Amino acid sequence: MDQEPGAALDLEELLTPASIAVVGASAKKESQGHEYVQTLVEAGFPGPIYPVNPKLDELLGLKCYPDLKAIPGDVDFVISAVPADATLELVDGAIAKKAKLIHFFTARFSETGREDAAQLEAELIRRTREAGIRVIGPNCMGVHYPKNKISFDPVLPRNIGNVGVLSQSGSHAFRIIGRGVERGVGFTKVISYGNAMDLNEADFLEHFAQDPDTEVIGAYIEGIRDGRRFLRALRAAASVKPVVVLKGGRTTAGRSAAASHTASLASQAAVWHAAVRQAGALEVSSLNDLIDMLVAFANAGPAAGPRVAILGGAGGEMVESADICNEAGLDVAPLPPEVRESLKEIVPKTWDWISNPIDGSILEWGRPQALHVLQTLAASPAYDVVLANVRWLEFMVARDDGETVFQETLGQLKSLAKNNGKATMFVLGDSESPDERRRRAVVVARHAFAEAGVALYPDIERAARTLGRYVRYLEERGAE
Amino acid sequence: MDQEPGAALDLEELLTPASIAVVGASAKKESQGHEYVQTLVEAGFPGPIYPVNPKLDELLGLKCYPDLKAIPGDVDFVISAVPADATLELVDGAIAKKAKLIHFFTARFSETGREDAAQLEAELIRRTREAGIRVIGPNCMGVHYPKNKISFDPVLPRNIGNVGVLSQSGSHAFRIIGRGVERGVGFTKVISYGNAMDLNEADFLEHFAQDPDTEVIGAYIEGIRDGRRFLRALRAAASVKPVVVLKGGRTTAGRSAAASHTASLASQAAVWHAAVRQAGALEVSSLNDLIDMLVAFANAGPAAGPRVAILGGAGGEMVESADICNEAGLDVAPLPPEVRESLKEIVPKTWDWISNPIDGSILEWGRPQALHVLQTLAASPAYDVVLANVRWLEFMVARDDGETVFQETLGQLKSLAKNNGKATMFVLGDSESPDERRRRAVVVARHAFAEAGVALYPDIERAARTLGRYVRYLEERGAE
Repeated sequence: MDQEPGAALDLEELLTPASIAVVGASAKKESQGHEYVQTLVEAGFPGPIYPVNPKLDELLGLKCYPDLKAIPGDVDFVISAVPADATLELVDGAIAKKAKLIHFFTARFSETGREDAAQLEAELIRRTREAGIRVIGPNCMGVHYPKNKISFDPVLPRNIGNVGVLSQSGSHAFRIIGRGVERGVGFTKVISYGNAMDLNEADFLEHFAQDPDTEVIGAYIEGIRDGRRFLRALRAAASVKPVVVLKGGRTTAGRSAAASHTASLASQAAVWHAAVRQAGALEVSSLNDLIDMLVAFANAGPAAGPRVAILGGAGGEMVESADICNEAGLDVAPLPPEVRESLKEIVPKTWDWISNPIDGSILEWGRPQALHVLQTLAASPAYDVVLANVRWLEFMVARDDGETVFQETLGQLKSLAKNNGKATMFVLGDSESPDERRRRAVVVARHAFAEAGVALYPDIERAARTLGRYVRYLEERGAE
Repeated sequence: MDQEPGAALDLEELLTPASIAVVGASAKKESQGHEYVQTLVEAGFPGPIYPVNPKLDELLGLKCYPDLKAIPGDVDFVISAVPADATLELVDGAIAKKAKLIHFFTARFSETGREDAAQLEAELIRRTREAGIRVIGPNCMGVHYPKNKISFDPVLPRNIGNVGVLSQSGSHAFRIIGRGVERGVGFTKVISYGNAMDLNEADFLEHFAQDPDTEVIGAYIEGIRDGRRFLRALRAAASVKPVVVLKGGRTTAGRSAAASHTASLASQAAVWHAAVRQAGALEVSSLNDLIDMLVAFANAGPAAGPRVAILGGAGGEMVESADICNEAGLDVAPLPPEVRESLKEIVPKTWDWISNPIDGSILEWGRPQALHVLQTLAASPAYDVVLANVRWLEFMVARDDGETVFQETLGQLKSLAKNNGKATMFVLGDSESPDERRRRAVVVARHAFAEAGVALYPDIERAARTLGRYVRYLEERGAE
């Protein structure tokens, strides 16, 4: 729905509440009524948290209230974890407490396809709109705003960063946060907004477009409430920062699934593809793709062109990295003579055998030679971007001086990725060795790269595909 | 090169040696000269194993010999782990010992691009050919033949199964075995053959085509030694069993990489694609794709058509699974009325909300309901194949009766996958929970599925893409 005329939306203000009530707070662990309260407590939300449940006196050290009206003073933000049939009473309480925002985790509304449920949703819209209360949901996880100590699950990492996300799906929001942080991405806000009964995709896009902390926007959208306004918002956002969009319900089967998920009426795929492209946003086709692109925009760094220097793993992997990069539109440029010349000193035995991609298996695997060759290529003006399979880190720890060499190489790789002034991506898949030291080395290295904000990918296919799209996107924008 | 006229090749006989010598056997752990000996010992190779090294008296409890000629009696199979400049002497020794097969792990031949190295390779060919000794390599890992207790690395699992693989790359051979076994695939033989100086891709294809234990063939090929003979062998093999082919060096960059890897002169991509297709084989474009297809052919089961029943994970994942299956050419057919009717009893609260894909999040996640709904769909004649995201297994263990329910559900899922008479694939990615019980549950479940020979995939994209190609392949073959 469009905003009320004259009622300018300040989402930042709505998402910076002085107090929060959780209605349907529960003592039952792992229930959402419990987890909303637990998360706010553990995140250290600075204002009062009011659990509401007539059967509880206390929850997690907080006093409980039988209903919203029993809370002393006003409540800015109400989280609803009650069943659908208790929501009208909740709205009345929220009005009495001068709430500005309600988030309905509550589901079983229009997405069920039932007439009575759709009517209840319509009545909620009517009453909240009349009272000037804005609504997130229903049927969603709600707000993850780590800077403001608000989140929706205690296990979610609350790393702050430069990525803002709107996700119609709660489970996708959950995964974007978890997998993103694991790969070095932090978030401004991630908002799971479900059925979009009031606040919708256009509101969140407009907010992220003007939010100074958000440098990259990710969106998972199943249905569009107002096509014209959405496209306007998308175009405006994409003109100031990268917007990566995943559409759920692109296909006939997906549309039917989306309807039962968030009551969304999805659009025709062809219309959608054209519109997103014309708006200057970047469309992806899976959750992995979405996260991969966010990792690139958040952390890869500048790319002036498609010429890629590759540390290609060993043997067949090296050949595969050349094929896949080539197919992804990257230019696997050969070694320039001056680079070849300088390799004589670094790897006197194999310098004449080295090319781009660098074949790790012809270097002394487990020693830092591969690093030095990679540094030489990365420093050459013949290359615009760098892609490195850093699996050889795991071989180091098997040697006597392994731990020292491992730590030194890790440090130098981080420095290469962040300071060479070229987009750099690392590939580091799970260890396939039964050796516990090697498996641990991969976990340690991944964690260190994520902490340093290095763009990290689980396999060469995903890295190359992402790097190809990233370089093309930057080239197209630069040419404008 | 073509076979010598009249010298019919019996690869089975060559790969069933009565004795094996490892020349260049080493006391240095993690060196290949050590690992070949260690692997044969640990695998329990039944015949004599002769380590050859003039500086050692004994290795791993075996008597060492200063050279091949010092070994008492004949040696059927010689593994060469000596440097290139010691190989001519090794061939002389092998001739003296009436060896039938030499595998050269030794590298630095024609793949270096150096004239002297290429000449040495040519001389090796001349001498072995004259003596009637067949050669695998040089520049490769060699033979993994678990039934005959032969392999090339002690950490490789030696599970026996129905898949035969030829791989020009040793690292790819290594990964195909490791990742394959992790996903329920066992092998007849995996042969890493490097520069293909004598025995080449056509010889191995011809062998696997007629090998009764091999039901599925996988191939990683960088260069073709004899195009006509290869296509003849490929067509013959593909007419009797599925052949999945990954070509390294499909692109300009890849071709150059392949030349430095295994001295291969790769062909033009378009010619290659057409030839493979015409031969009736299935081409893939990455190592992950190759393994994914081998998993399907080895373990998925029969597929009579494209109508897929999906357990789609939770919320957004469910929508994504519908979109991705649809885009992969599968038919996400709606629930037939009689299935819908029977769901009333299983899930009385949500039966009217359930569709295909099944949305796990609207069932009581962590209880066996999702299994019962899946069983109902899988049993319906409205579906030809089944794709199930079984992540909800991990939620079970967090409950009080979790371990029991988990084990029961695991058993029923295995039974569903193997006994329902329809191609069935499960998706089970890494746990994203910090909860150690949940992470362990995923590991336990994956292991149990692999042991039971269930076709297992790490994410919905790879599963759907594979299932789509698998169904299409079977349909095309069925229509012949």
